[in-house]
Amino acid sequence: MEKFEVKAYGTPSAKAPLKQLNIERREATSKDVEIDILYCGVCHSDLHTARNDWGGSVYPAVPGHEIVGRVTKVGTDVTKFKVGDLAAVGCMVDSCRECPSCRQDLEQYCVPGFTGTYNGKDKHLNMQTFGGYSEKVVVDEHFVLRVPENLDPAAAAPLLCAGITTWSPLRHWKVGKDSKVAVVGLGGLGHMAIKLAKALGAHVTLFSRSPGKEQDAIELGADQVIISTDDSQMLTAKGKFDLIIDTVPYVHDVNHYTPTLNINGTIVLVGYLGPLEPMLNTVPMILGRKSVAGSVIGGIAETQEMLDFCGEHGIVSEIEMINMQDINEAYERMLKSDVRYRFVIDMASLKN
Amino acid sequence: MEKFEVKAYGTPSAKAPLKQLNIERREATSKDVEIDILYCGVCHSDLHTARNDWGGSVYPAVPGHEIVGRVTKVGTDVTKFKVGDLAAVGCMVDSCRECPSCRQDLEQYCVPGFTGTYNGKDKHLNMQTFGGYSEKVVVDEHFVLRVPENLDPAAAAPLLCAGITTWSPLRHWKVGKDSKVAVVGLGGLGHMAIKLAKALGAHVTLFSRSPGKEQDAIELGADQVIISTDDSQMLTAKGKFDLIIDTVPYVHDVNHYTPTLNINGTIVLVGYLGPLEPMLNTVPMILGRKSVAGSVIGGIAETQEMLDFCGEHGIVSEIEMINMQDINEAYERMLKSDVRYRFVIDMASLKN
Ligand SMILES: [Zn+2]
Ligand SMILES: [Zn+2]
Ligand SMILES: [Zn+2]
Ligand SMILES: [Zn+2]
Repeated sequence: MEKFEVKAYGTPSAKAPLKQLNIERREATSKDVEIDILYCGVCHSDLHTARNDWGGSVYPAVPGHEIVGRVTKVGTDVTKFKVGDLAAVGCMVDSCRECPSCRQDLEQYCVPGFTGTYNGKDKHLNMQTFGGYSEKVVVDEHFVLRVPENLDPAAAAPLLCAGITTWSPLRHWKVGKDSKVAVVGLGGLGHMAIKLAKALGAHVTLFSRSPGKEQDAIELGADQVIISTDDSQMLTAKGKFDLIIDTVPYVHDVNHYTPTLNINGTIVLVGYLGPLEPMLNTVPMILGRKSVAGSVIGGIAETQEMLDFCGEHGIVSEIEMINMQDINEAYERMLKSDVRYRFVIDMASLKN
Repeated sequence: MEKFEVKAYGTPSAKAPLKQLNIERREATSKDVEIDILYCGVCHSDLHTARNDWGGSVYPAVPGHEIVGRVTKVGTDVTKFKVGDLAAVGCMVDSCRECPSCRQDLEQYCVPGFTGTYNGKDKHLNMQTFGGYSEKVVVDEHFVLRVPENLDPAAAAPLLCAGITTWSPLRHWKVGKDSKVAVVGLGGLGHMAIKLAKALGAHVTLFSRSPGKEQDAIELGADQVIISTDDSQMLTAKGKFDLIIDTVPYVHDVNHYTPTLNINGTIVLVGYLGPLEPMLNTVPMILGRKSVAGSVIGGIAETQEMLDFCGEHGIVSEIEMINMQDINEAYERMLKSDVRYRFVIDMASLKN
């Protein structure tokens, strides 16, 4: 298979900072779209993969799965895109296409596993995949999204992970005009959850551990902020929410929130992978038919739906633009939650 | 308020065995139905209340919430019943009737709390309620169920708790012809879950910790038995079930079962109230949009639906009939799971 070299930013080992390096991309096959990357959002997963926090990282590692760019080449069988289109790639670049999940447009739950945009296994080149911290990316058109031209392409980039990760549960649990939604955590995911839930017509509450985020939350679209460490405020929220989107990425007490679910309500975890400590108490769940659920990103069709919805409603992420060369410093700031609310890399900086 | 005395079986304290005693019932008000109790099923909750295992028991305690009998009197405003009808009473005898749950026929999730058939608070007499281990019961017609005349009334009694407790999640999670359902635990609840899921058209699997229950499970309607302590059998079940009804009444490892859920699947706990130990692992939940949920009994309209369904399909519980005087021995056998699958008291024995 024909290949070509592009500049990228990545790390040769778990302990090393990210630096410029060259990687190979496949020449576009008949079904591929080649994209000149304009912007790439910075997700916590990028950092964890670069540093091998979850194990399994293959080096050199090139992160980035919130990709927006312009189409520069299309394969002969490509029907959805033409050169010059604004296009996007999210967390997936391939899947098996034939399992029950894939047949239901749930590629994110592909039974043999989807191919991650980075640190996945490229079937064409038989090597690991490289993410969006690079000049170009070549992706099967099924996994390429159309970006509404009215959106700021830089601020649209985080929709590809932070956006769809919160959109998918909002849609799956049928949030609409009469819904009461709460969001736990006001970061990249949380701020998108507020915007999207509000645009769907829900009444939106932010749970915050400490005062000081009220103004920001209201500006993002929240109707209310509840200080979750204030027992009296938590009592007033008892039995209130149809859906709680819990974006907290570290272990925390979910029992704190289950009593605030309405009958038939669900708290969906989208940020934390691991054992629930302290132990989950079944009492409020059984006595109110409440659920604790998990959800990961969203399917390709659903991602397109979300982008189109954002186009109609003028929704993008709040971002801080950085140069590619600032990425190591940005990671340090992310670890301190010192970002409002998503870093996005101006990929022009890589070309200079 | 006018009252009358009836013979009953109950316990004067947590440590005492059950014995015969007299209790008072209210004279039927205009909305009440008076029922001559023919049969009463024996639920684990009866035992736990008699022995104050959960705290909060009021004495004398008269258990029993799987009640079937004949209507002997109706109030002037009663429209659903006439003298001579076969009628039933389950776990609830009242609720607030005006909260959002009650308005949605979800009396089991009444916000101020439903009135339990025993150890509840009777609004009319301003004292605790007494259950079905007695000659007669007087209940507002809203909480009285019609029993199809084609069913064996003794074997129908356990439908009022064990039946509805498994029916409600089967219906809420929309089990039908294409569903794959698994049941954890083969006791009073588990055997009803198998019968009801099968009659709804589902493919039904029993998870059993040890071999030896295959024949019974198949006879009850299961299509398959998986020995849950056999890792190779558990592997073959990976990703299979749309709904798992977990009837196990003590703490156990739910992580054992979550991998066997299909994408979007739910494991619903109906038997165990308390903290989930070991800790629930969110990884398979997030990577498959799986839920852990709880559910308690069912609403009155749903209970009637279940009874009518059982009438159409000829479904009743498997029972061992006992006399009222055998109840203390029956409790001991229940603690050893030595019952197939539900004790039912022939209440004629109390009258002798
Ligand atoms: Zn991400
Ligand atoms: Zn697949
Ligand atoms: Zn019961
Ligand atoms: Zn109520």
